[in-house]
Amino acid sequence: MTIKPSAETLARLAAVVGDKYAIRDPSEMTAYMAEAREIWTGKSPLVLRPASTAEVSQILAIACEAETAIVPQSGNTGLVGGQIPFETGDEVLLSLDRMTRIRAVDPVNNSITVDAGATLKSVQEAAGNADRFFPLSLESEGSCRIGGNLSTNAGGLGVLAYGNTRDLCLGLEVVLADGRIWNGLKSLRKDNTGYDLKNLFIGAEGTLGVITGAVLKLFPHPSDHATAFVALPSVKAALDLLNLARQRSSNRVTAIELFRRNGFEFTIKHFQVRDPFAAAAPWYVLLELSGSGDLAGLMTELLGEAAEQGIVLDATIAQSEAQRKDIWFIRQAIVEVQKREGGSIKHDVSVPISELPDFVDKALVAIEAFMPGARPMPFGHIGDGNLHFNVSQPLGMDKRAYLDQWQAMNDVVFDVVLKHGGSISAEHGIGRLKRDLMMKIKSPVELQMMRDVKKVFDPKGILNPNKVLPS
Amino acid sequence: MTIKPSAETLARLAAVVGDKYAIRDPSEMTAYMAEAREIWTGKSPLVLRPASTAEVSQILAIACEAETAIVPQSGNTGLVGGQIPFETGDEVLLSLDRMTRIRAVDPVNNSITVDAGATLKSVQEAAGNADRFFPLSLESEGSCRIGGNLSTNAGGLGVLAYGNTRDLCLGLEVVLADGRIWNGLKSLRKDNTGYDLKNLFIGAEGTLGVITGAVLKLFPHPSDHATAFVALPSVKAALDLLNLARQRSSNRVTAIELFRRNGFEFTIKHFQVRDPFAAAAPWYVLLELSGSGDLAGLMTELLGEAAEQGIVLDATIAQSEAQRKDIWFIRQAIVEVQKREGGSIKHDVSVPISELPDFVDKALVAIEAFMPGARPMPFGHIGDGNLHFNVSQPLGMDKRAYLDQWQAMNDVVFDVVLKHGGSISAEHGIGRLKRDLMMKIKSPVELQMMRDVKKVFDPKGILNPNKVLPS
Repeated sequence: MTIKPSAETLARLAAVVGDKYAIRDPSEMTAYMAEAREIWTGKSPLVLRPASTAEVSQILAIACEAETAIVPQSGNTGLVGGQIPFETGDEVLLSLDRMTRIRAVDPVNNSITVDAGATLKSVQEAAGNADRFFPLSLESEGSCRIGGNLSTNAGGLGVLAYGNTRDLCLGLEVVLADGRIWNGLKSLRKDNTGYDLKNLFIGAEGTLGVITGAVLKLFPHPSDHATAFVALPSVKAALDLLNLARQRSSNRVTAIELFRRNGFEFTIKHFQVRDPFAAAAPWYVLLELSGSGDLAGLMTELLGEAAEQGIVLDATIAQSEAQRKDIWFIRQAIVEVQKREGGSIKHDVSVPISELPDFVDKALVAIEAFMPGARPMPFGHIGDGNLHFNVSQPLGMDKRAYLDQWQAMNDVVFDVVLKHGGSISAEHGIGRLKRDLMMKIKSPVELQMMRDVKKVFDPKGILNPNKVLPS
Repeated sequence: MTIKPSAETLARLAAVVGDKYAIRDPSEMTAYMAEAREIWTGKSPLVLRPASTAEVSQILAIACEAETAIVPQSGNTGLVGGQIPFETGDEVLLSLDRMTRIRAVDPVNNSITVDAGATLKSVQEAAGNADRFFPLSLESEGSCRIGGNLSTNAGGLGVLAYGNTRDLCLGLEVVLADGRIWNGLKSLRKDNTGYDLKNLFIGAEGTLGVITGAVLKLFPHPSDHATAFVALPSVKAALDLLNLARQRSSNRVTAIELFRRNGFEFTIKHFQVRDPFAAAAPWYVLLELSGSGDLAGLMTELLGEAAEQGIVLDATIAQSEAQRKDIWFIRQAIVEVQKREGGSIKHDVSVPISELPDFVDKALVAIEAFMPGARPMPFGHIGDGNLHFNVSQPLGMDKRAYLDQWQAMNDVVFDVVLKHGGSISAEHGIGRLKRDLMMKIKSPVELQMMRDVKKVFDPKGILNPNKVLPS
């Protein structure tokens, strides 16, 4: 248990960063206390904005001594509340938003070393300036920061070809709970010297240490893309198409994003997008190949083959970069249109890819049984087995009354997920939102291991307490 | 500290697997006690060959209670002695060699679930039978087993395109030090629910738990290859070629294996290989592109461009599968020819790829200064920054006298490695061979974290004691 920080402790903490960067006035804290989901509003006596790893180290040394709870925050774009202090108002918020340096770019090693507070966009740009490509790509890339991407092991649009954030990290710098600094900023592709501590901090949501710097992998720019918008009879057909495309292209499929007819219809309605096909189809994918060679020819060929096999109902291939953007716009608009269709209950889930068709069938049935008229709008990264299985409210229902069913609807969907060997948090993490579900989804053995690890790295429990693990 | 097992403890342990699979006669233990490097000969009162995860669990429960040291062993192909019991003869050897099942293959999910004792070859074959590709590839693939590959995070020939063993693993089943079983056999591409325990066991060399099963990633078969044998003026030129090849092929370089003129000369001498080039070159690479499209055309084009830029001195492209095999033979013979050139002192090291040219220069100078006439024969996976910087003895020197310099030669090479931000064990692990070097290469903070982790997972210190971490 942490202790409510005394005035003296707060003063000592503030002194580390200087008055200018220690925010005590609640009215100036809004950007740090509000969050995108609008579920929680944090409360804190102090927001600290350190400029360096050394300052983070000093802050944690004081917090450890005084047993003050620290909530690390990066870009504040998290969707599970992990970055927001509890309403008790006893937790000090530690923002990484002043630590934004690109420390070094090494194009020959294909690596970049950055401060944890660098925005994803700035890392992408620094890579681009060195004629390299950093493939992590999220809706929030303009404002999310690398420390948060690492702490939540963010996924996004590049996972199929390049992996999750975990797979893009070569080395870390971490300030431990007592203020010690671990310099693990290795930029090696192979290093088998002892335990893999790096991956323990990645995805730990700031509960085991504060990530202050990282070495990330870079790649050559894909020189070309072929992008298609494809109408499909079923989810199974989408998987058949993925399989065929991976085989024919030797693994150059860089995106396959699924959505349902209703998501596309909402996009047509709210954004006046044109439906390129003569007939409505139950499912659609955006399919993209990237790399070099005759990708457009390859795409035409494989879609032709898929049509012959009855996998594909209809398809259109982008003939220009503008048309490619139009297709991506449809996919990205799915996020926005949900807001315009009333309340939306979210599920960021994954199952083994082979389980997707049966999972979708069963989940649709279970939702309809639970709440007739509710409008499931699953979409997402089927190449990773990851669907955002969001459910829009029935037409005409009161929004508040619908959102009050959040937990109950989650239970319905998660039940189907777990029966299919899936995950109730594919890419958003656990944070506060899903913390209590950990008791349900993890075995006692696994929970005990996690608790043991937490106790070793943070014996006083000062790092983001009561997030991730139920106490 | 563990306790010398009593006759009663040994009897209890043997009873778990039955007499037939409990070896007590030292003369029947040779295959488990000898190792490829011929540095150590293990001694043990008992070799246990369990048939199932349940039996491994029972064994560890007894060992934990009796505080008996357990040395897990998989294919016994490790090169750092991690799998061999100490000469004291008090440690029980736990072999996974009867647990060889391919539990399940899921081609749609691109995954395979296997027992830890399955040989790498059998996994490759099971993948092939399902029209899929498992890319881990090592010299020892016929006899090494997946549990050992995971426990050492094995590298090998496929790392550039597919990553280390760590990158190929989706889920694990592990028996913990007290016999509890962790079922972490998830086959998901995305699962952000709590701490990454999987990667802690991978590469821990059996000191944190015994891996008994795993879910591994599969890939589509690369449909085509283009393979070239290339003569180069320098290591820097090899990196320039790699960079150019990755750019031009959009990342379809699947191998770039470097070796020095002397390694090639020895191959010519001992295996009557033909030198295809008119003039000798200081360095050579095997370069391979894999995938689909006109790879041969791409290879011809990029080698032409490289020649124009002065990167490449000469090159020959395989025109048939037989010629491709001939080129790979040259690379693979480098391992064998070292045995025929007298004593060889080994260094499995890595540096950031951009540091390779300077590292090689400095290491060659340092070795010549330490022992004039010694013949460094660096070769290996430069796309991963990983060289086997082995040094053959000076001509005419006594082999034993040369090998007595092993440690001293290591010190010379490792010193240069560390100055270049490198690793003294890129892919073989620490085991016993490099255990005491951990004090030198790791910061006190990192060592303490590793010790803390070890203490949590194995409080009695029964799992492979005195390996990896110096006590």
